[in-house]
Amino acid sequence: MAKEKITPRSDDFSQWYIDVVLQSQLADYAPVRGCMVIRPLGYALWENMQRALDSMFKETGHQNAYFPLMIPESFLKKEAEHVEGFAPECAVVTHGGGKELDEPLVLRPTSETVIWDMYRRWIESHRDLPILINQWANVVRWEMRTRLFLRTTEFLWQEGHTAHATEPEAREETMRMLEVYRTFAEEWMAMPVTPGRKTENEKFAGALETYSIEAMMQDGRALQAGTSHHLGQNFAKAFDVTFQDDSGKRDYVWATSWGVSTRLIGGLIMTHSDDDGLIVPPKLAPTHLVMVPIWRSDEQKSTVLEAANRILDDWKLKNPTCRFHLDDRDQFKPGFKYNEWEVKGACMRAELGPKDIENQQTVLVRRDKREKSDKMFVPLSEAPTRIGAELDAMQHDLFAAAKARQEERTTVVDDYEEFKTLLEEKGGFFMVHWDGDGETEKRMQEETKATIRCIPLGRTPEKGKCMITGKESKGRVIAAKAY
Amino acid sequence: MAKEKITPRSDDFSQWYIDVVLQSQLADYAPVRGCMVIRPLGYALWENMQRALDSMFKETGHQNAYFPLMIPESFLKKEAEHVEGFAPECAVVTHGGGKELDEPLVLRPTSETVIWDMYRRWIESHRDLPILINQWANVVRWEMRTRLFLRTTEFLWQEGHTAHATEPEAREETMRMLEVYRTFAEEWMAMPVTPGRKTENEKFAGALETYSIEAMMQDGRALQAGTSHHLGQNFAKAFDVTFQDDSGKRDYVWATSWGVSTRLIGGLIMTHSDDDGLIVPPKLAPTHLVMVPIWRSDEQKSTVLEAANRILDDWKLKNPTCRFHLDDRDQFKPGFKYNEWEVKGACMRAELGPKDIENQQTVLVRRDKREKSDKMFVPLSEAPTRIGAELDAMQHDLFAAAKARQEERTTVVDDYEEFKTLLEEKGGFFMVHWDGDGETEKRMQEETKATIRCIPLGRTPEKGKCMITGKESKGRVIAAKAY
Repeated sequence: MAKEKITPRSDDFSQWYIDVVLQSQLADYAPVRGCMVIRPLGYALWENMQRALDSMFKETGHQNAYFPLMIPESFLKKEAEHVEGFAPECAVVTHGGGKELDEPLVLRPTSETVIWDMYRRWIESHRDLPILINQWANVVRWEMRTRLFLRTTEFLWQEGHTAHATEPEAREETMRMLEVYRTFAEEWMAMPVTPGRKTENEKFAGALETYSIEAMMQDGRALQAGTSHHLGQNFAKAFDVTFQDDSGKRDYVWATSWGVSTRLIGGLIMTHSDDDGLIVPPKLAPTHLVMVPIWRSDEQKSTVLEAANRILDDWKLKNPTCRFHLDDRDQFKPGFKYNEWEVKGACMRAELGPKDIENQQTVLVRRDKREKSDKMFVPLSEAPTRIGAELDAMQHDLFAAAKARQEERTTVVDDYEEFKTLLEEKGGFFMVHWDGDGETEKRMQEETKATIRCIPLGRTPEKGKCMITGKESKGRVIAAKAY
Repeated sequence: MAKEKITPRSDDFSQWYIDVVLQSQLADYAPVRGCMVIRPLGYALWENMQRALDSMFKETGHQNAYFPLMIPESFLKKEAEHVEGFAPECAVVTHGGGKELDEPLVLRPTSETVIWDMYRRWIESHRDLPILINQWANVVRWEMRTRLFLRTTEFLWQEGHTAHATEPEAREETMRMLEVYRTFAEEWMAMPVTPGRKTENEKFAGALETYSIEAMMQDGRALQAGTSHHLGQNFAKAFDVTFQDDSGKRDYVWATSWGVSTRLIGGLIMTHSDDDGLIVPPKLAPTHLVMVPIWRSDEQKSTVLEAANRILDDWKLKNPTCRFHLDDRDQFKPGFKYNEWEVKGACMRAELGPKDIENQQTVLVRRDKREKSDKMFVPLSEAPTRIGAELDAMQHDLFAAAKARQEERTTVVDDYEEFKTLLEEKGGFFMVHWDGDGETEKRMQEETKATIRCIPLGRTPEKGKCMITGKESKGRVIAAKAY
C-alpha cells in the first residue's frame, strides 16, 4: 500500500531492499526468528518461477517425488564432510507425541542423506539407472544473520538428486543442470549470470565439485543464484549404494544434486527494482497490465467502468497470455493506484478516462520507463498488439540494462592494493589472478571481505601471477563481495 | 515392477491396499517411523490433483501464500480446544544451531495459529477483508497407527484460511469450499461422496462447525476425504484480530479453514483399484495410453519401433490432451509390460505388432475392463478419436460403478441389534436415527466401532426414534466404520 516512503538505494541499499520487500507485500517477518511469510504477491512470483523451472526439469527427463522432512540424526554423520558442513545449522526434533524420541530427528537442511538411503533400496542393477528425481520442498537451516528471501531459517527450494552408472554421465548431468539454471536466470529472470566452478573452500559439503551461477546485484555485490554438484561416489559409499553392471560386476553409484531457492526472488529484486518499488520481468510477472479507470462523477464512473470492462475483455481475447487486471476500487484515486501498482511491480498500466473513450485511445505506461510520451497514446484497437510488443521489449531491456551494468562494473586488476581500493570505491566483480591455494583465498577474505565467487567456465587460459602471493596462475577468477 | 503377487481384496483388504501402493511404486516406507516417500508415480498423481484443485481455488477468488513450518508452542495454547486437540500429536523442535531454544517450536499440525497471528497485523479495517488465502504445505501429526497415504506422520496438503467481516460471509465460504471438494471428488476422482456436517464430538478442535465429504471404500468403510470448518470468531478472539467496520465500530473477524491432503490418494486407490493393481480415473491419470510394440526379430523390431514412433507422433498431434507413452524397453517381453502397466494404472494400452502395421490397425485394451473384444481392433486412423472416447467412457464408468456400489451398500436400519449384525455381515453405510447426544454416539462407537460420519446436507426431515436410546430424532445420519 506504499504507506511509507521507500529508502532510496543511494542512501542505504540494504534498507531499500527491505522496504521494497515489505511495502510491495512480497513477504513479511514471521513470529519465529529468522523465518518469513511469503505473501500472495511473492508466492505468485514463486509459482511462475516454479512453473518455468519445473517444465525445464521435465524436458530434461526428470520426475518429481517427495521425501520426508525429518531425518534421523545418525544419517547426517555417515558422510564426514557433510555432517561437518550441516550439523551446526540443524534444527532438531527431540519430542514427538508427548514423548522424548529414542533418536533425535533433524529437519532436512538438504536431502542427500535420506534420499540415498532410499536409493539403496531401489537400485539393484544398471537397469535401474539413471534415477532422475527432483523435489520441491521446504528446508531448514539455522542461520545466524537472516534477511528476507536471501537467507531465512526456513526457505522453499527444489533439489534434484540423480544417480548414474558412470562418472561421465554424472558429470554431464551436473553441467546440464547448471546450463538449465543459466538459461532460467537469463531468459526468464532477465538476470545475467556467470557460470563457473567453486573453489575447494566454497564447495558443497560432501561434493567432489560444485558449480554455480553468480549474478551481480545493483550494489555491485555477487549473489550465488543456483548450484549444481558433482557428488562423485561419496554418498553411494556412505549409504552403501552399489549396482551390478551388465558384466555382473558391482560398483558404487555416481551422484549429482542441484538446487535453487526462494533466494532467487531476492536476486530478482536487487537486479531490477528501483526507488519506487518492485520491477519484475514480464515472463515472470504476476500482473502484466493494470487498467486504471478515471472518473470525476458517478455518471462518468458508470460509463468508464462499462467501457473498461468491455475493452479488457477484448484485449484478453486478443492477447490471451497477457495477465490483465482492472483496478476498479472505489475508495482510491487514480494517482494512489498508479503509485501502488508501481510499488507492486505491475509491468504496465493503462489509463482510461472519459476523453480517452471519446478518442478511442488509452495511455500506456511501462513500469521500467514510466515516461508518458506521445508515443504511448495508443488507439484502443492497436493496444493488444502494442502491449505484447512493449512486454517483449521490457523483458529485453531489463536484461540489457543488467548486462551493461555487470560489464561496466567488472574490472580486470593485477595489483592487490589497487584491488582493495577499487573494491571499496567501485565495487563489482574483479577478474584477478589467484594461485589456486585455499590459504591465499582465506587471506583475501580476511583482509578484504571479498571471496572468490567462481572459476568461470570456458575462461581464456592466461598465464599470470597471483595478485596476492605472486605465484603462478593459469587464468583469472572472479573476486567480489557477496550476499 | 510387480515382482510379487498382489494379495486379493477378498483375502485381506488391508494387505491388498499396501501391496498396490508398494508394487505400483506410488510410495514407499521412509526410514523415519510413520513417514512415507512419495515416489514419482504417486507424486505425478498428486500434481494432477493439485493442478485441478488449485485452479478451482483460484476461480473462487483465492490466492496462495506460504507460512512458516515452525510455530511457537505458546501459540497453540491460545485457543483452548485447539491445544487440547493438537498438542498430543505435535513434533517439537527444542534445539537449533547447536543450542537449546528459549521456547520450543512445534511443527505445524495445521496453521490456524500462525496465520491468525499474521492476520492481526494485516487486518485493520473492513477494506482489508475478506482475506482468501490457501497454502500448499507439509504438516506433521504424531500418529500412533500409520498407513501409507491414509495416515502418516508427515503428509502433504492444502489448507485454506479465510477472514471475513460477517458471519454469513464466513458460512457461505465454508459451504462454497465444501462444494468445491464435492465437485473435485466426484468429477475428477470419480469418487461419489456425501457432504454433511460432523457431530460435536467429531468436529475440528477450535471450530464452530465442521463439514466433510464422506466416501465409501470398496470394503464398505467410510473415508473422510475433505473438511471445511466454520471457525466463528474463535481464532480472532484468541489472537485479538479485530477490524473497524464502515461506521467505525470494532468487531472480531470471522474465519473459515478447509483442507484436503495426500490421504485422497488412498481414497482413490480404495475406490477404483482391483486385484491386478492400480486404476486411476483418466482426468487424473499420469499416463493415459501406453503403446507396447511387439517384435520377434531385430528386423521386425526396427520396423515396428519406427512405425510406433510415427503413429504416436500422429496421435499426439490429433489428441494433444492425451498423455501417451511408448514402452520401447528392450529387456522385457510384451506380456511383462502389459502386467507392469496394469499394476501401475495406465488407463489404456495399445498393442502394435508387424501384422497390425500391415493391417493398419492396433489393439486397444482398457485398464478397467481388459476385454480384448473384436470392437477393440481399431484402424490406426480412427484410434485418436476412439482413445479420447474410451477415456471419457472410463471416467464415467468408474464413477457409475462406485456410485452403484455405494448405493447397494447403504442400508436404512432402525433396530440397533440388526444394525450390529448388518455392520459385521454386510458393512457399508447405515442410515440411522440418532438422538443427537454425544454420549449415545460414544456408546455406539464403543459397542460397534462404527461412528457417525455426518449429518447429510439437505437430508429429508423424518421424525423417528434413536435406534439406541429410543429418544426423538429429526432425521437420519450416516453411521459406518471408518478409516
